[in-house]
Amino acid sequence: MNAIDHLVSLLTKLPGVGKKSASRMAYYILDTDPSYARTLAEQLQQLHGAIKRCSICGSFTETDPCPICSDPTRDETLLCVVERAQDVRVIEESREFRGKFHVLGGLIAPLEGVGPDNLSIGPLVQRIHGGKIQELILALNPTVEGDTTALYVQKILRDLPVTISRLASGLPVGGDLEYADRLTLSRSFRGRIRM
Amino acid sequence: MNAIDHLVSLLTKLPGVGKKSASRMAYYILDTDPSYARTLAEQLQQLHGAIKRCSICGSFTETDPCPICSDPTRDETLLCVVERAQDVRVIEESREFRGKFHVLGGLIAPLEGVGPDNLSIGPLVQRIHGGKIQELILALNPTVEGDTTALYVQKILRDLPVTISRLASGLPVGGDLEYADRLTLSRSFRGRIRM
Repeated sequence: MNAIDHLVSLLTKLPGVGKKSASRMAYYILDTDPSYARTLAEQLQQLHGAIKRCSICGSFTETDPCPICSDPTRDETLLCVVERAQDVRVIEESREFRGKFHVLGGLIAPLEGVGPDNLSIGPLVQRIHGGKIQELILALNPTVEGDTTALYVQKILRDLPVTISRLASGLPVGGDLEYADRLTLSRSFRGRIRM
Repeated sequence: MNAIDHLVSLLTKLPGVGKKSASRMAYYILDTDPSYARTLAEQLQQLHGAIKRCSICGSFTETDPCPICSDPTRDETLLCVVERAQDVRVIEESREFRGKFHVLGGLIAPLEGVGPDNLSIGPLVQRIHGGKIQELILALNPTVEGDTTALYVQKILRDLPVTISRLASGLPVGGDLEYADRLTLSRSFRGRIRM
């Protein structure tokens, strides 16, 4: 295998990258100034060294605790629970939420052998025992695994003085009834909002 | 800018990669075993050193001349002219062509300041003067630039004893008349094939 083929096969491992896109990328890298490949290589080389997990919320960060956990202006009574570290980024970009985060590190998926013990649920309970958190927003995907995990977290925290809510599920903004699947439609009926 | 943001901004430079996909890629690289980032970095670092341009056809290769130019079993009388080195790969994968290649390195595009002198047209004429080539297949994209370049090459080679053809343009296999644009439809009429 030559160097281009090798690079292509490495790039196809990335999410959403097929053989054609990997090949386009490889040739772009070859065609463009070599400094691009060099900078990208350096960045990849130091990535795992530079980024660690925040010891409080579990998201990726360069400093521990992460900028969000150590920001005194953020609402400590509100905790948003997400599946993965990248979900923190998505929610931060929406600028909708000014509380703190907790990354579970996955969702309960018995068929894939992921149980509650594989997730950061123990540390979540501890944080709530800390006393400052009043509301928990479960920002988990509206999937079977997301639902299971949400129910489990709710059960575990039943006796603690904390309000638990979940992100609304329904029609996407700008979407079309015609293209909504049955389940989404059913959820948007059940979650209908009085005007 | 932290290390993730920096990586994301580098990845968005790749063709077909927007901010969302770049972000997914970056988090995949962070989540996966660090050996992946390391291998990818090494491959990128050595890419430009390992790959050069073939001195005969101009395609990317690890050896000079490239495996295709130095393959004695390939038809030396047939020359396929392409725009970019990656086109060689696409055509090779179709296994449709058993001749040799010539990479122009671009297409004539006056508005972008690309004239015939910026392309590898001189070397093409020299190769044909070499005497072995009997047929030239112009495998250029069916765009304004491709058409202009094809006409220019045809004009330049007018007096040389070489047949020039161009890849057929028309409806893609499995395509639908309904979705064909007007120009494609018009070309497929003009290029209709008698049954």
